[in-house]
Amino acid sequence: MTDASAPSTGSPSLAELEAGVPFADRHVGPRPAELERMLAAIGVGSLEELADRALPPSIRDSGEVPTSIPAPASETGMLAELRELADRNTVTVSMIGLGYAGTVTPPVIRRHVLENPAWYTAYTPYQPEISQGRLEALLAFQTMVADLTGLPVAGASLLDEATAAAEAMTLLRRAGKAKSSRFVVDADTFPQTIDVLRTRAEPLGIELVVADLAEGLPEGELFGLLLSYPGASGRITDPRAVIEETHARGGLVAVAADLLGLTLLTPPGELGADAAVGTTQRFGVPLGFGGPHAGYLSVRQQFARQLPGRLVGVSRDADGNPALRLALQTREQHIRREKATSNICTAQVLLAVVAACYAVYHGPEGLTRIARRTHRMAAVLATGLRAGGVEIAHDAFFDTVVARVPGRADAIADAAHAAGISVRRISADELGLACSELTTTAHLRTLWEAFGVAAEVAELDAATPDALPTGLHRESGFLTHPTFHQHRSETALMRWLRRLADADLALDRTMIPLGSCTMKLNATAEMEPITWPEFAELHPFAPEQDSEGTREMITQLERWLAELTGYAAVSVQPNAGSQGELAGLLAIAAYHRSRGEAERNVCLIPSSAHGTNAASAVMAGMRVVVVATDPAGNVDLGDLRAKIAEHGAALAALMITYPSTHGVYEAEVREVCAAVHEAGGQVYVDGANLNALLGLARPGAFGGDVSHLNLHKTFCIPHGGGGPGVGPVAVAEHLAPFLPGRGSGEHAVGPVSAAPYGSPGVLPISWAYIRMMGIEGLRRATLTAVAAANYVAARLGEHYPVLYAGRDGAVAHECILDLRGITKESGVTVDDVAKRLADYGLHAPTMSFPVAGTLMVEPTESEDLAEIDRFVDAMIGIRDEIRRVQAGEWPVDDNPLRGAPHTAACLVDKWDHPYPRDLAAYPTGATPGVHDRKVWPPVRRIDQAHGDRNLVCSCPPIEAYSS
Amino acid sequence: MTDASAPSTGSPSLAELEAGVPFADRHVGPRPAELERMLAAIGVGSLEELADRALPPSIRDSGEVPTSIPAPASETGMLAELRELADRNTVTVSMIGLGYAGTVTPPVIRRHVLENPAWYTAYTPYQPEISQGRLEALLAFQTMVADLTGLPVAGASLLDEATAAAEAMTLLRRAGKAKSSRFVVDADTFPQTIDVLRTRAEPLGIELVVADLAEGLPEGELFGLLLSYPGASGRITDPRAVIEETHARGGLVAVAADLLGLTLLTPPGELGADAAVGTTQRFGVPLGFGGPHAGYLSVRQQFARQLPGRLVGVSRDADGNPALRLALQTREQHIRREKATSNICTAQVLLAVVAACYAVYHGPEGLTRIARRTHRMAAVLATGLRAGGVEIAHDAFFDTVVARVPGRADAIADAAHAAGISVRRISADELGLACSELTTTAHLRTLWEAFGVAAEVAELDAATPDALPTGLHRESGFLTHPTFHQHRSETALMRWLRRLADADLALDRTMIPLGSCTMKLNATAEMEPITWPEFAELHPFAPEQDSEGTREMITQLERWLAELTGYAAVSVQPNAGSQGELAGLLAIAAYHRSRGEAERNVCLIPSSAHGTNAASAVMAGMRVVVVATDPAGNVDLGDLRAKIAEHGAALAALMITYPSTHGVYEAEVREVCAAVHEAGGQVYVDGANLNALLGLARPGAFGGDVSHLNLHKTFCIPHGGGGPGVGPVAVAEHLAPFLPGRGSGEHAVGPVSAAPYGSPGVLPISWAYIRMMGIEGLRRATLTAVAAANYVAARLGEHYPVLYAGRDGAVAHECILDLRGITKESGVTVDDVAKRLADYGLHAPTMSFPVAGTLMVEPTESEDLAEIDRFVDAMIGIRDEIRRVQAGEWPVDDNPLRGAPHTAACLVDKWDHPYPRDLAAYPTGATPGVHDRKVWPPVRRIDQAHGDRNLVCSCPPIEAYSS
Repeated sequence: MTDASAPSTGSPSLAELEAGVPFADRHVGPRPAELERMLAAIGVGSLEELADRALPPSIRDSGEVPTSIPAPASETGMLAELRELADRNTVTVSMIGLGYAGTVTPPVIRRHVLENPAWYTAYTPYQPEISQGRLEALLAFQTMVADLTGLPVAGASLLDEATAAAEAMTLLRRAGKAKSSRFVVDADTFPQTIDVLRTRAEPLGIELVVADLAEGLPEGELFGLLLSYPGASGRITDPRAVIEETHARGGLVAVAADLLGLTLLTPPGELGADAAVGTTQRFGVPLGFGGPHAGYLSVRQQFARQLPGRLVGVSRDADGNPALRLALQTREQHIRREKATSNICTAQVLLAVVAACYAVYHGPEGLTRIARRTHRMAAVLATGLRAGGVEIAHDAFFDTVVARVPGRADAIADAAHAAGISVRRISADELGLACSELTTTAHLRTLWEAFGVAAEVAELDAATPDALPTGLHRESGFLTHPTFHQHRSETALMRWLRRLADADLALDRTMIPLGSCTMKLNATAEMEPITWPEFAELHPFAPEQDSEGTREMITQLERWLAELTGYAAVSVQPNAGSQGELAGLLAIAAYHRSRGEAERNVCLIPSSAHGTNAASAVMAGMRVVVVATDPAGNVDLGDLRAKIAEHGAALAALMITYPSTHGVYEAEVREVCAAVHEAGGQVYVDGANLNALLGLARPGAFGGDVSHLNLHKTFCIPHGGGGPGVGPVAVAEHLAPFLPGRGSGEHAVGPVSAAPYGSPGVLPISWAYIRMMGIEGLRRATLTAVAAANYVAARLGEHYPVLYAGRDGAVAHECILDLRGITKESGVTVDDVAKRLADYGLHAPTMSFPVAGTLMVEPTESEDLAEIDRFVDAMIGIRDEIRRVQAGEWPVDDNPLRGAPHTAACLVDKWDHPYPRDLAAYPTGATPGVHDRKVWPPVRRIDQAHGDRNLVCSCPPIEAYSS
Repeated sequence: MTDASAPSTGSPSLAELEAGVPFADRHVGPRPAELERMLAAIGVGSLEELADRALPPSIRDSGEVPTSIPAPASETGMLAELRELADRNTVTVSMIGLGYAGTVTPPVIRRHVLENPAWYTAYTPYQPEISQGRLEALLAFQTMVADLTGLPVAGASLLDEATAAAEAMTLLRRAGKAKSSRFVVDADTFPQTIDVLRTRAEPLGIELVVADLAEGLPEGELFGLLLSYPGASGRITDPRAVIEETHARGGLVAVAADLLGLTLLTPPGELGADAAVGTTQRFGVPLGFGGPHAGYLSVRQQFARQLPGRLVGVSRDADGNPALRLALQTREQHIRREKATSNICTAQVLLAVVAACYAVYHGPEGLTRIARRTHRMAAVLATGLRAGGVEIAHDAFFDTVVARVPGRADAIADAAHAAGISVRRISADELGLACSELTTTAHLRTLWEAFGVAAEVAELDAATPDALPTGLHRESGFLTHPTFHQHRSETALMRWLRRLADADLALDRTMIPLGSCTMKLNATAEMEPITWPEFAELHPFAPEQDSEGTREMITQLERWLAELTGYAAVSVQPNAGSQGELAGLLAIAAYHRSRGEAERNVCLIPSSAHGTNAASAVMAGMRVVVVATDPAGNVDLGDLRAKIAEHGAALAALMITYPSTHGVYEAEVREVCAAVHEAGGQVYVDGANLNALLGLARPGAFGGDVSHLNLHKTFCIPHGGGGPGVGPVAVAEHLAPFLPGRGSGEHAVGPVSAAPYGSPGVLPISWAYIRMMGIEGLRRATLTAVAAANYVAARLGEHYPVLYAGRDGAVAHECILDLRGITKESGVTVDDVAKRLADYGLHAPTMSFPVAGTLMVEPTESEDLAEIDRFVDAMIGIRDEIRRVQAGEWPVDDNPLRGAPHTAACLVDKWDHPYPRDLAAYPTGATPGVHDRKVWPPVRRIDQAHGDRNLVCSCPPIEAYSS
């Protein structure tokens, strides 16, 4: 009875069983049978056949491409490997300072925001009706920054403090009336900020003067001044005199300020500053070896329209209720293109939300208490050192003291490090010691010991006065809005966060088929490591030996990215796609200069390009020349050749996106690249659409000299509701010396981000994705994404014209539905369709980009057939509704499309529309129970113009909501 | 300018600043100003005054109670301390087996279920209309168990395998026709299962016979048989013959089966078994040093009504749509009391959901593949050992092989452990090696090395036949329902889980004012550690040195709990309150026996007691005698004395709840206890309401001999949607030798749970709570909870009579609203009120317990005033609606109360009710935007009777939903 049976034939081997189901099976949406149905609808027999049809043979990789990417790991295997890397980091108590402070991320915020896909998988709130939650959180962020800095208009975050300072510099230039091109920077500013300012000033012809303001403002004209408050050294000086002097000379002033310090110090706005910049990192955002963190920039009211980046404003919806949305969008690069004054596209929404939550959780008195703790620790630390005979460089400071220890700095820093504390080595004679909310009296004792000083805390505390300058005590209130007072218990905060999240539509409830944005799965296994303390709690300037694991991870990732794109070298430093573009163009410019061809400054850009391309080119000091596209949507080769001929030796570069922003694999891309190369130009291939290439073709192999990649698109870093983005720049061998912050000599390009590695805190995500997919998995993802787009095009083609197509009518990984004719005939606009999709519980595709009046659909590989069909069926249902409008059944100004989105409240109110309530609410019919996918938008259609005319950019009084 | 200012006067000292805001400030809801308003409404000036008013002086602790509980730690400090304890554990690859297997919790399930408050803070689904999500998940669990075991009716989980086996034993006894009291157990059953069976059999007069079934069934009568398939040794024998033989003798058969093995083996139902039991741990549930895990029990159709515990069934709602709810509730202990056949109250819902998700994620072919991997690892392992000359005990096995190594077991186990693998040491001559989905070929090589054997995997694999018995290959299909096929990509699973969670109302969206259930905050900092691998991946029978950290944590927790309750010793072993009760009563019974007073078997229970009290007493072999309560709701002292006199030397114990289940601090509790003690009885104080005592009074100090505590009430373990519960038993010195599994000698009490420490995986939660609150914080929580209940009573008293009160009209931590008069006058029932609260976005209070026709409200300390007022205002609004019914404005069978809850779908449909749609949907008016708290119930009122008449307990065909 118990005899063993014969071996089961045809069963997988143990090795096969051990390999298990590949992660790619979980990442990719369609099951095999679903994929078959999709391919049948497209009319191909296999993914390979689809690849052969869609991709031009001229760009295809032939055969195996050598790569160091290992065979795919399972989730468990990947996590174990990453754990080993994490364990090679050493987390110490960081007292290095320089704009990066230890902070407690309250666990309730970590779990409910940073670890919650409802927050981290959301997209930029371009569809405000289904983004009210994060808009509300961002409004709290703006209010927090405005209140603390004493400047009334704050944006919804910038990339980091250094780039925020650079944005402030250019803002002051265009906002002011000075003719000077001179910008003065306080010498006591974070070195990384000065470095980024240099990088950004040079191509714009700004003369940067770094000056010790203790000596007073340097002689001569200036358009602006940046001063630091406190300085990098921790010193606080009263800036009123230099501010007045700058104003007197016709310049404007930005103050780089420590937001926590501003709970105790007179805010920049009250000191006369025109703008304030800084980071919100210490408001609960993990150090993450340098990022991502939310930078801030706030300005006087009259400069509101000069602000770069996103700005949330209050408006009203169709029912007259208050509703939020992005204000003044005409400022932005995607609209202003080469006339833009900034290329900022992404914000740091996820991190801004964390910082705002931190302020909501602590409230003004909680923040003040944290600031006082921080300050008192520093003050007592200084007194203890002084009592032990150590000279302290400054009498007035907030959190940082500089100790003068001639010749002993290294020895003391080493002793402190051995005891678990990292300090800043300023020179052989000076150490910087920065306190934070994590500093304890035990740390003070450890430090005193390292200095060879004996001191006793309680005694010193009683004897130590505050070290804040008398004339700069903050008197004004801040965070007085109820938002900062109502959610103080964990239960209250948790519910507030849930309520906000529920107002938004993110990937955890629906596909987000946004063309050009690649809203794919952000797998949990990829996300988990980013909150591991070993990755999260590392200071960007930690002693090198402490970050060995992260740096090894980055080295591997950079190598893999280079191999995948066919380039020689990659830098992950740019902390957004726009910064990657800038870095790439700066590399090209430096390359030309290094060859004595500084006159090459024309950048050719096809008319269909992303708006950032043009804006970045201008920021890199180039002249933008637009190249036409032909009726098929491709670069017009004739026009290109004409433009090349016209600009001759002035040609610096061509920027193209591949596949094109029209979602097409252009067949002649090799010819295009060759034409540019022949004329001595460089080819910049925008990597935004890399998800259509990975494993099939490599930009560096078919003609690109440089690309930026969007890790938040192709490589699974979540969009975070509008950031973080990560935009590594990849270059061919000859451009490698010009990677940001890497080269040396006169033509070297400076850093483009504050931290050496940009936003390393989220890089484990992309590392994990590549590690679990392997080359074969990535290739499968690409082909599945292309199949999904072609399936959508095939099914929707008879209902909406598909605007462009490539070989054999195939599209790449996205397709453009042309509604212009339909709009003309029916009066129903792309807006109406987008808002109606919200009634279906779906997020709209990209609207009116790259062609006005169209919708661009990118389903990605992660959506299964059921979800793709849900979208397609909704679009067909909407087409039918449009037909009923066309047929006159419903008036053009009162139909389910124009009325969309419908809130539940509007449906149970009195109803006098020509279409029934249930059609408005449940266009596909209600499904009982948990199978229902109905999601209710919290507001109706939002009036954009009203909000721009009546600009309100901080939390409105509560009464506004009771109207 | 930079001179330092004078010291700021009146500012907190550095030590105070360093201490920071106590965690208690986050745990407790009301801010100081809110608390003042609450106290004013109650009419007291402070919490202390409230304590003086509400609590009888006779029970109050006077002065400081000595305790080893340290001063409160911050979240960061607590986590650091717990991290140190975690680091003292050693996680090895566990191949110990015995019902606990290594498993991969898919990260998507970990994050979206185990780490998601929408799942873990939910209550038992007694309000099914707002619990459809977890009911759907539990239905999938039941379907999974039914399919795999081949027995059509499975419950919604039991506490663990051992208690499930005990429940099966008593089920077979009452379901069968045999007169015998003899129960035979396969000797090759997990030792811990046999131990629990012994504990449970003895008081019920069941004769337990452990027999080697290889020798055939022992001679003689029997009412039932439990056999193991595979056995504890891994051996698989064909059980058909013994099953037939048992049936022939009039007995019934339960099979303890490995659920994963059943994907390959003929299921128990097809072998003729009447019931199957086991654990679902290896379906993705972390080992957690023994629990919590979901046990299972499935039976033939005709035994459905005999099932203990929860059973989910399909019914329909008021609109005729399918809807789920708990079926056949009249079986349960809270209704049947001393006539109950089981005291099971809590299930293991959270863990059952994880197991169900695991099956949904992998599907039948995925599970089969995992089973085959597991089996092939074991088979190849065995072949390798055999080839190396090691004797393998059995030829047929699934995942576990027993190696015979005379005299070498310890040395080999040590060598394996040194190489990172824990195996089972059966004896000095035998080792058990259990494979799992975590087993790799590298582990096989490590083991072979430890055995001193050289082997090569690929070769052996090709040469090794399966070790499954030929006659027992599974032929039948399983998990054929679409649920197990539609959510296979991570995106699809994530969205399914979000959809289910959105259908439910948990603490992340509303207060859950359930009287007697203490639905307080489950703080994130308390929850985070439970998924740390050091706690989550420990086998319950791991070598002692591997669990040092967890055991130290348990020791501290047991000491703290003992000190807080005034007892001498605590055991955390009972993995539910009901099991704690049983353990406490068994201790009392053993104590009496040890003193030669075995005849003491009467257990006095007040009529107001929890139903489990009576059921547990019966299970402990006692006779229940009910004691009356007086009109004020207190124990009727006269009746008590009469019953004591009546039963004299037969008196074993009195069970009381304190404060009483009427929510009142009974003044005479000391007299009650004294009367029992004088008569030689023991006093059992049910700790369900300990949240009204902590820091103020200790049951062990005012008269209790034993209590059980509910860590899932007072000590923050979340309710998990209906489990896990944890119910430690606390005893006075003289009962300490009778704690479960701790004593020795003839009167020792055996274990009540499978694992030595019950559910240690969740104990960090309670440890963290106490560690962060400290004694002062716990006391503050208690008083705030009492204040909240008295505030509710004060505000609602004029609208609904408050049924019972203690001294000066004060209630304890909960209050009973008496609707009986209102129902009589208006026809509106407690059900109507409860369902109408769902329209308000609120969870109902406890319905009809302890008094039919009433609602019992327990706000807890974690709710802030705004939320308490939201509830109170809703109850007042409902009272107004009731008045309109009374006034005849609306008919009694068609009004917003009887129509509740209203789905969105029913409101946009045609409407012919006498009340308007907007009143139905938004009784307090709609609030635009993210400030709206409207939550839509997914179904309308559910027809309970229909479901019980038409019992469907597994996933219905999809067509059922398209009606």
